[in-house]
Amino acid sequence: MRYSVIGMGNAIVDVISHVPDEFVDTHHLDRGAMRLIDAEEATRLYAAMPPGIESSGGSAANTIAGIASLGGRVSYIGKVRNDQLGEVFAHDIRAAGVDYQVTPGDDGDPTARCLIAVTPDAQRTMNTFLGISRNLSPSDVDEDLVASGDLLYCEGYLWDVDVAKEAITKGMDIAHRAGNRTALALSDGFCVERHRAEFLDLVEHRVDVLFANEVEITSLYEVDTFDEALQHVAGHCEIACLTRSEKGSVIVTRDEVHVIDAHPVERVVDTTGAGDLYAAGFLHGLAEGFDLGTCGRLGSLAAAEVISHLGARPEVRLADLATPLLG
Amino acid sequence: MRYSVIGMGNAIVDVISHVPDEFVDTHHLDRGAMRLIDAEEATRLYAAMPPGIESSGGSAANTIAGIASLGGRVSYIGKVRNDQLGEVFAHDIRAAGVDYQVTPGDDGDPTARCLIAVTPDAQRTMNTFLGISRNLSPSDVDEDLVASGDLLYCEGYLWDVDVAKEAITKGMDIAHRAGNRTALALSDGFCVERHRAEFLDLVEHRVDVLFANEVEITSLYEVDTFDEALQHVAGHCEIACLTRSEKGSVIVTRDEVHVIDAHPVERVVDTTGAGDLYAAGFLHGLAEGFDLGTCGRLGSLAAAEVISHLGARPEVRLADLATPLLG
Repeated sequence: MRYSVIGMGNAIVDVISHVPDEFVDTHHLDRGAMRLIDAEEATRLYAAMPPGIESSGGSAANTIAGIASLGGRVSYIGKVRNDQLGEVFAHDIRAAGVDYQVTPGDDGDPTARCLIAVTPDAQRTMNTFLGISRNLSPSDVDEDLVASGDLLYCEGYLWDVDVAKEAITKGMDIAHRAGNRTALALSDGFCVERHRAEFLDLVEHRVDVLFANEVEITSLYEVDTFDEALQHVAGHCEIACLTRSEKGSVIVTRDEVHVIDAHPVERVVDTTGAGDLYAAGFLHGLAEGFDLGTCGRLGSLAAAEVISHLGARPEVRLADLATPLLG
Repeated sequence: MRYSVIGMGNAIVDVISHVPDEFVDTHHLDRGAMRLIDAEEATRLYAAMPPGIESSGGSAANTIAGIASLGGRVSYIGKVRNDQLGEVFAHDIRAAGVDYQVTPGDDGDPTARCLIAVTPDAQRTMNTFLGISRNLSPSDVDEDLVASGDLLYCEGYLWDVDVAKEAITKGMDIAHRAGNRTALALSDGFCVERHRAEFLDLVEHRVDVLFANEVEITSLYEVDTFDEALQHVAGHCEIACLTRSEKGSVIVTRDEVHVIDAHPVERVVDTTGAGDLYAAGFLHGLAEGFDLGTCGRLGSLAAAEVISHLGARPEVRLADLATPLLG
């Protein structure tokens, strides 16, 4: 059995609650931002939050679910505990059509969660407890599984933990030895700040397809303008996909540049997952052998679907949406 | 005496009047569009219009005035009559710092004018009578003058008249024989429709620097998306500058692509002249030896100034605005 894409990332369940405005200040949260929290704060904050809804998330997991929705054969590597949120995560990702073989841990930290407090102004304040997902290690990277995927896709967030870093490196080396391709999403501007030198090295030596938004790519090369970053990234890896929200995206190789418009959206409800789903569309197009322009338009289409509703996974079958584009 | 840029185009004076809404229907005008009218209709319409203001325009003339405002040494070739509007045009372009040596015609059609009816919704309905500007002929193209400009810039609108077409061809050939460069603005989507085959040939064989907006460039190559046009134009001429309104611009050569953001504007008042002034900034940057990214940013800056007020020529010295950018 071969996969088109295998994803690797933090397996996270989002817990979304509507909170009154003063909740953010009372609990000293970073309004509108994403912040890592520890077990103790996660427990305390979760107890204080009003009843919420759970939905499976995690950046690379969203991407992989998106590729499945487009009709691709995909697998995901990310760690959960044998607890209730772990069951939610595993159920959702399998229900999305993703092959998920990782054995849940039976001790240590619980399943990762992102506690999202939505204030009356519709702003999301995110508090992520990484839990057991931090323990993703080289031993979780099954050599046969990774070798069986045409492409291995990793999220940059993993780079925050040394053992997960080794897991990425091992995975990418397996992929390349097997003649497959690798992809990396830079994930977050702060993440790039923390690991700039290592990311530059990774992009040059181990990454074939890079995903980055404007903040991330200008931070990576420490330049002021998008165009300067564009000049740096050309040829630094095989393909770079630079996403720019409503300005669309730019795809760069050593020999080609494609400028792709954002897909029209009637009303932007929640931008969470836009980058994840862009990567889904692009990678699915690449796996299916479409030209880079079409891959980019498929990315824009998938991103447009996910920002038109709450939550970071598609609500309709993306394969149906993509039919007019792919003919 | 050498010039950095010599411009060639229709020398037009804009006549702007505020009209009541029903004026557009009563006089059978094309609301919001640009339409060519004949002498008889021009006389009739001008008589019917309320008192207005005159301001010198013409696409290439606006560009040349913009380069002068940036500090470049420029000259302009375009035909006026020895009438009142001809005096207005010559006065304004000289007052803008442009060398203008063309002798006014003393018979035939009067000076070209664009009768602009502004309705209460701030929309501009344009009615252009080309008058004597249509008579621009090879004999108006002074060989010594054209040879003395590092670049000859022509507007596509000229291509509508056979004798002006010969004038462009003669000018471009003189420029190339003298080792100078040539530039063409496609001017208008309808203009491209009318002359597609000839424009394709011109771009391939005689044009070094091409300016086109999204409608024009997709029409030129008869493609649906901006990205497809981008792939066609790469290498078709030395440098292509593709402007995209609020999406900024893309500069394409055989080996380089630059993606340039629009310069921020507090309030867009009137977009007339945006493309003309982008060309001014870009060409001035090119003449001064700046890299293509900086040329593009200079184009965005000049376009931003002109759309922040009524009228198609800069209201402040662009050289001052450009100082922070050029250091």
